[in-house]
Amino acid sequence: MSAASREALFRALFAPRGIALYGASGDAAKNTARPQRYLRKHGYTGLVAPINRSRREVLGVAAYPSLAEAPGEIDQAFIMVPPADVPAACDECFARRVPVVTIFTDGFGETGAAGREIEARLVARARAAGVRLLGPNSIGLISTTPPTALSVNAVLELERLPVGPLGVVSQSGSLIGAFLSRGAARGIGFSRLVSVGNEADLSVAELLELLVDDAQTQAILLFLETLREPQRIARAAQRAFEAGKPVIAYKLGRSSAGIELAKSHTGAIAGDDRAVDAFLRACGVLRVHSFEALIETAHLVIGQRPPARRRVAMMTTTGGGAALVADPIGAAGVELVAPPADVAEKIRALGVRVGDSPLIDLTLAGARGNVYGPVLEALLASDHCDAVVAAVGSSGQFHPQVAIEPILRARRSFPAKALAVFIAPEAQASLELLAKNSVAAFRTPESCADALAAFFAWRAPHQPPTIDDARIPRLRAALASAGPLRAEALFNALGVPQTPTQWLREAGEPIGCPFPVAIKIASPDIAHKTEVDGVELNLKTARSAAAAAKRLLARVSAARPDATIDGVVAATMQSGLGEAILGYRVDPQVGPLVLVGAGGTLAELYRDVSLRPAPLALEDARAMIAEVRGFAPLAGYRNAPRGDLAALAEAIVAFSALAAVPEVREAEINPLIVKAEGQGVVGVDALLVLGDGAPRDAIANAPS
Amino acid sequence: MSAASREALFRALFAPRGIALYGASGDAAKNTARPQRYLRKHGYTGLVAPINRSRREVLGVAAYPSLAEAPGEIDQAFIMVPPADVPAACDECFARRVPVVTIFTDGFGETGAAGREIEARLVARARAAGVRLLGPNSIGLISTTPPTALSVNAVLELERLPVGPLGVVSQSGSLIGAFLSRGAARGIGFSRLVSVGNEADLSVAELLELLVDDAQTQAILLFLETLREPQRIARAAQRAFEAGKPVIAYKLGRSSAGIELAKSHTGAIAGDDRAVDAFLRACGVLRVHSFEALIETAHLVIGQRPPARRRVAMMTTTGGGAALVADPIGAAGVELVAPPADVAEKIRALGVRVGDSPLIDLTLAGARGNVYGPVLEALLASDHCDAVVAAVGSSGQFHPQVAIEPILRARRSFPAKALAVFIAPEAQASLELLAKNSVAAFRTPESCADALAAFFAWRAPHQPPTIDDARIPRLRAALASAGPLRAEALFNALGVPQTPTQWLREAGEPIGCPFPVAIKIASPDIAHKTEVDGVELNLKTARSAAAAAKRLLARVSAARPDATIDGVVAATMQSGLGEAILGYRVDPQVGPLVLVGAGGTLAELYRDVSLRPAPLALEDARAMIAEVRGFAPLAGYRNAPRGDLAALAEAIVAFSALAAVPEVREAEINPLIVKAEGQGVVGVDALLVLGDGAPRDAIANAPS
Repeated sequence: MSAASREALFRALFAPRGIALYGASGDAAKNTARPQRYLRKHGYTGLVAPINRSRREVLGVAAYPSLAEAPGEIDQAFIMVPPADVPAACDECFARRVPVVTIFTDGFGETGAAGREIEARLVARARAAGVRLLGPNSIGLISTTPPTALSVNAVLELERLPVGPLGVVSQSGSLIGAFLSRGAARGIGFSRLVSVGNEADLSVAELLELLVDDAQTQAILLFLETLREPQRIARAAQRAFEAGKPVIAYKLGRSSAGIELAKSHTGAIAGDDRAVDAFLRACGVLRVHSFEALIETAHLVIGQRPPARRRVAMMTTTGGGAALVADPIGAAGVELVAPPADVAEKIRALGVRVGDSPLIDLTLAGARGNVYGPVLEALLASDHCDAVVAAVGSSGQFHPQVAIEPILRARRSFPAKALAVFIAPEAQASLELLAKNSVAAFRTPESCADALAAFFAWRAPHQPPTIDDARIPRLRAALASAGPLRAEALFNALGVPQTPTQWLREAGEPIGCPFPVAIKIASPDIAHKTEVDGVELNLKTARSAAAAAKRLLARVSAARPDATIDGVVAATMQSGLGEAILGYRVDPQVGPLVLVGAGGTLAELYRDVSLRPAPLALEDARAMIAEVRGFAPLAGYRNAPRGDLAALAEAIVAFSALAAVPEVREAEINPLIVKAEGQGVVGVDALLVLGDGAPRDAIANAPS
Repeated sequence: MSAASREALFRALFAPRGIALYGASGDAAKNTARPQRYLRKHGYTGLVAPINRSRREVLGVAAYPSLAEAPGEIDQAFIMVPPADVPAACDECFARRVPVVTIFTDGFGETGAAGREIEARLVARARAAGVRLLGPNSIGLISTTPPTALSVNAVLELERLPVGPLGVVSQSGSLIGAFLSRGAARGIGFSRLVSVGNEADLSVAELLELLVDDAQTQAILLFLETLREPQRIARAAQRAFEAGKPVIAYKLGRSSAGIELAKSHTGAIAGDDRAVDAFLRACGVLRVHSFEALIETAHLVIGQRPPARRRVAMMTTTGGGAALVADPIGAAGVELVAPPADVAEKIRALGVRVGDSPLIDLTLAGARGNVYGPVLEALLASDHCDAVVAAVGSSGQFHPQVAIEPILRARRSFPAKALAVFIAPEAQASLELLAKNSVAAFRTPESCADALAAFFAWRAPHQPPTIDDARIPRLRAALASAGPLRAEALFNALGVPQTPTQWLREAGEPIGCPFPVAIKIASPDIAHKTEVDGVELNLKTARSAAAAAKRLLARVSAARPDATIDGVVAATMQSGLGEAILGYRVDPQVGPLVLVGAGGTLAELYRDVSLRPAPLALEDARAMIAEVRGFAPLAGYRNAPRGDLAALAEAIVAFSALAAVPEVREAEINPLIVKAEGQGVVGVDALLVLGDGAPRDAIANAPS
C-alpha cells in the first residue's frame, strides 16, 4: 500500500469526516443507542448519520432511510444490525465506496464454517469496491485527538477520555474498556484503541503499521489471543523499532500447551507458548505476562533501546516493599547491583548507610525529600546500572514531598535512564501524578517486576540471514528424489550430515554402508516401526544384515498384509557423547521455527528445548544451545568430555534453511548424535512432513 | 503457656490499659511524635504516658521523668529512644513488670554479633522479670477493636482504620502500612496488625497462636522474610486449621536459591524455596505469590476447607477478562469445567448460549441482572465444581445492577461454595462493596489466579507418623559405631538397604562382600576421593581387589602425606534400572526435611526433586515419587521396564525417621540404585553430617 493510501485509511479510521450508524437505536437504554451518544459526549464534531428505514430521526438527530440519501462525506460506517442484515448494509457502503466499514455485529467467522464463508464473501465484495472492513465482531474504535469515540463499550460513560501516547490494538473487544478505565484512573492516556474483532480484513499487523506512522502514538500495546500474519507483524514491529516506538504485547495461551497434545515431538513442543515467546522476542516486541504491566510498562521503555546488560539499582524507603520487587526480578535473572565506590561515597555523604546489600535503604537516614532526590539523581547519573527502581513507602500516600516530588525532579534532570517506581501503599494520586509526568509507576510489585523483566529481555529485532538462492535447486532436487530416503537426501543437501543409509529393495542386495548397521522396514504406511517389530539393530556383517532383512520383511508382511512395503533401509549405527533433537516446523501462529533440545527420555520429560524463528545465523544457534540445560554435560559440566557443540550450531543453522523450501511443513532429526569435540554431529533418524495435504513422508533410520 | 497467661499477654498487646511512650517527641513534625497523636486520633481511650526526663508535658499530655512516677496500669511500653538508651528504658519497664515492651528502635540483632549480644541480654533480663518483648526493630502494632494504633507508620494518617476479620503478622514493618492502606481503599478490614521486628522474644509463631484464639480474627495473614521455630509454627497452624481460621502466607526468597550455592546436593537443593513451599503446605498454610493476593484471598477461603478436587466453573460478561484469569489458573493445573447437562439446561433457558467451551459467556445474552444472578446461582448450587469465578466487564464500573448486585444476592443465597470475582475495569467502589459483603474480589487477574491456585493447593495439615521409640537405641548404637562405615550402619539400621561393605584396615585382609567390588580409600580427611585417585571400580576377584587396595594406599599416601588413612573400604558393585538421590537435612528455616530426586547429571541440572518435612508416611513418599518427573521411565513411561518404586517409597519413609536422631544434620544416599519391580533398592554411596560442630563424617562407597 502506498503511503498516501495508508494515510487515507488512517484518516477514515481515526478521524472520519462523517460516520453512518446502521442499527442505531432510538431507545437510549439500549446498547445500540450508545455510539451516537458517546460520539457526541466525547466531542466528535463530524457528521453522524443514523441509517434507519422507518424513522426520520434518532435521538434528536436526522436519520436517513438509506446511505445513498445521507449527505456529506461519510468516511466510516458502523454496523450494529442483526447478522442477516449485515450484507445488505455493507452493500450500501460498498456502493458509495465508504472507505471503512466497521462491523460490530457478531455471529460470523467465529461461529464456524458457514460464518466464515459469509465473512469471506463480504471481504471479497469489499475488496472489489476498494472498501476496508474492521471486524466483524469489533466493539469499535476510539481515537482521542481529534476525538472519535465510536464504540458500544460502556467504558465511554467515563467523564473524559484519557489522552496520551499509547496506541492499543486488541483482539478482545471488552478489554478496550479495561484499558481505558484503568488508564483513566491512573493518568495513563491513549492515542487510539482499536478492537479488531475477527480480523476478516484489517488485521493486527496492518493496524500496527498504521500506528507506527501515527505522530500521536509513542508506544503500541497489543492484546493478543492468537497470532496471524507473523511475517507482516515482524515487518511492522521492525518499523516500529526503527521509529523508536516500543511495541508491548500481552498474549494469551500460556496454558493451552498442556492440553493440545500434538503427535510428533516437534509438534508437541513447538505448539508450546515458547514459540510465541521466541517469535515476539525476535520481532523486538516486549512481552509482559500481566494485564497491569501491559498498561504500566510504556513509560519505562519509551525513549529507551534494548539494554546491553541486566543491572538494576534499587533505592527505597520501605525495605519490605523493595524486597517485594527484588524477589521476582531476581527470579527473572536480573541482577541487583550496589553502587560503585564514588557513587556510594556521594550517597553516604547524604547520611545514608550503604552496606553490603545492593539495596539502598533510606529508612535509617530518615525519609526526607532532600535525601531521596539526590540519591536517586546519583543513581540515574551513574552507568553502573541499566535501570533504577525507586520503591516508595507510606510517604507515597500522604507525604508526596518526601519521595514523589523528588522523583519527578530527578527524572526531569536525568531523563535518559530507565526508571520504575513502585509505591507500596494505595496511592492513586501519586501514581497519577507520576504517569502524567511520563514516569513509569507500578501499583503492584509483580507488575513492576514483570515490566523490568520484559525490558531486560528486550532485543533489537532479529535480522534473519539471507539464504543463498543458488542452494535452492539442490534442495528441490533432493525433495524430488523418490523412495524412502528423501528426508536424508534433503538434510544432507542442507548440510546436516546424516548417517550412511541405503535403500534395499530386496533382502539380498549388497550393503555399501559401513557396519554395524541397523535394518528397518521401509513403508509409507508404517509410522511406528517398532510396533510391528520392524527394526533390527547392531548387525555386524553383510550376512547377518541380509538374514535380518529377510526375517523382517516376512514378519512385517504377515503383521500388516495391507501395507505397501518398499523393501528395507540399512543405516550405519552411530555413537557419540550425547544426543540432540533438531526440529523444524511451520508453526500456525508464528511461521517457520527451529527447535533444538537435548535428546533422550529425560530431556523429553523436562521439555528442555530452545526455539527460534527460522532462518538463523550462527550466533543465534549458539544462543539456543546455551539455553538448553541438557547440553551442559557436552559443554564440559563436571569435567565431562566436551561434545562438538560447534558442529551442532552449524547443523542448526543449516537446518534452519528449510525456511527457503515452503513445501516442508515439518522436519525432525531425532536423535542427532553429538560426537566428541572436532568430530561433528550426525543424524540417525530423519522425519519429513510436506504440506498442502501431501502424505506424511516419515522415514526413520533408527528405532522409532 | 497457660491459657490464662496467654490471654493476659493478648490483652497487654492489643488492649493495653495504659501505654508508656519512651522517646515521644514534642515536635509534631517528627516521626517519634506520631504514636501519641495516632493513638488518640484512632480512638485509643486508655492512659498514654510519655516518659521524659526533661519535660512535664508532651503535646499537651502530662509526661513523667521516669516510668516509676507514671500513674495507673501501664500494660505496654513503646520505646523509641536511641539504641544506647534502650537498655535503661527497658530496665525501668522490667522493674515495674510492664507486661509487654515494644521496641521500635533498631540497630540491634540485625546489625551483627555485637547487636545480637545486647539483644540477647535484653531478652534474658525480660524473661527474669516476666516481661515480654516485641521487636526490637518493630514498627509497632495496630488493633482495631478496641482501637490501639501504636505505631510510627505514616499510614495512620488514614481517616479511619479499616475494621475487619484479618489478623496480620509481618516481618516487614513498613508493609504494615501497605496492608492497612490497600485494605482501607478496598473495604478489606483488619483485626490486628503486628510488626514483629527482630523476633528477639515474641515470634511469628507465638503471635500466630495468639491470633488463633482471637475472636475478632477469622483469617491470619503472614508476611515472611524468613522462617523461625518451624515446629511451633506448624503446631499453631494446626490449631488455626482446627479453629477454621485459614492462614495465608507470602514468603520472600524465591530468587535467593540461585545465589546461594551450597556444597552437597542436598544442601544446594534443599536450600531451595521449595523447602519453604513443602513446609507451608504441610502446615496447612495457603501460600500466595503476590502481595495483592495476600490481602485479597481471605474471603475466598474463610469458611472453606481444602477442596478435594480442582474444578472451576467460570462465567463472564467479558470474554477477554475471563481469559485473563483462565490462562494463569490453567497454567497452575486447575481445571475449567463446563456445567453438566441439567445445569446447562437451566442456563440455556435464560437465553445464554452454553457451548463447547467451559466458559459461560453472557455477552450475547445481553449482560443483564436478571440473567447474571440466576446463572451464578445455578453454578454456586451445582456440585460439578469446587469454586466459581465470576468475571465482570465494564458494567462493574458503571452499572452495578448488571452483575455486582446480583453477585451479592447470589452469595447470600448460596454461601457455601468458594467464589472469586474479578472486575476487568477500574472499579474501586464495586470492589469495596463486594469486600464489605465478604465476597473475595480481585483487582488483577493474576491475583485472582494466584488466590485460586493457593486454594486448590491447600491441604489439611500433615500428620507426621510417630517414630517408634523402641527403634532409637538401635539407631544410636549404629551412630556410635567407630570406623568409616558409620553412615552405612545407620542407614541399614533405619531399614534402607546398603550395598555390602567391609572396612579393610590393611590391603591384604580377606574380603567377604560379593564380587565384583569397588575399593575406596577410607580417610576422614579426604572428602572427594576421586580427586586423589582414591577409588578403583569393578574388581572381580579377591586377588585383583587386594592389588587395587595396595596400589590405592600407596598412591593416596604419596599424594596426601598429611591425611589420616584408615585403610580402605570394599563395597559390592550394584546395577539396576535407574538411580535416585535420597537426602535428609535439618533445614535452618523449616527443620527436618527429606528430599528425593532422580539421579544422574541431567536430573541434577533440572533440579528435579521433591521435598517434604520429615518424618513421613508411605502415602507422602508415594506422592513425592509422583512429583519427580525423572522417575517416569521407572513407572513404565514409553514401555520402559518398571523399577521398584514401592521399595523406593519404603526407603523414603525409613530414611525420614532420621528426624528422631537430632544429632544428624545432613544425610545422603547418592546414588540409591532402583532395581526392577520386586527387586528393591540399594544404596551405594552414603554421606552423613553430624551437628553441634562435629566433624563432617563423609563416607562414600562409590566414586564421589
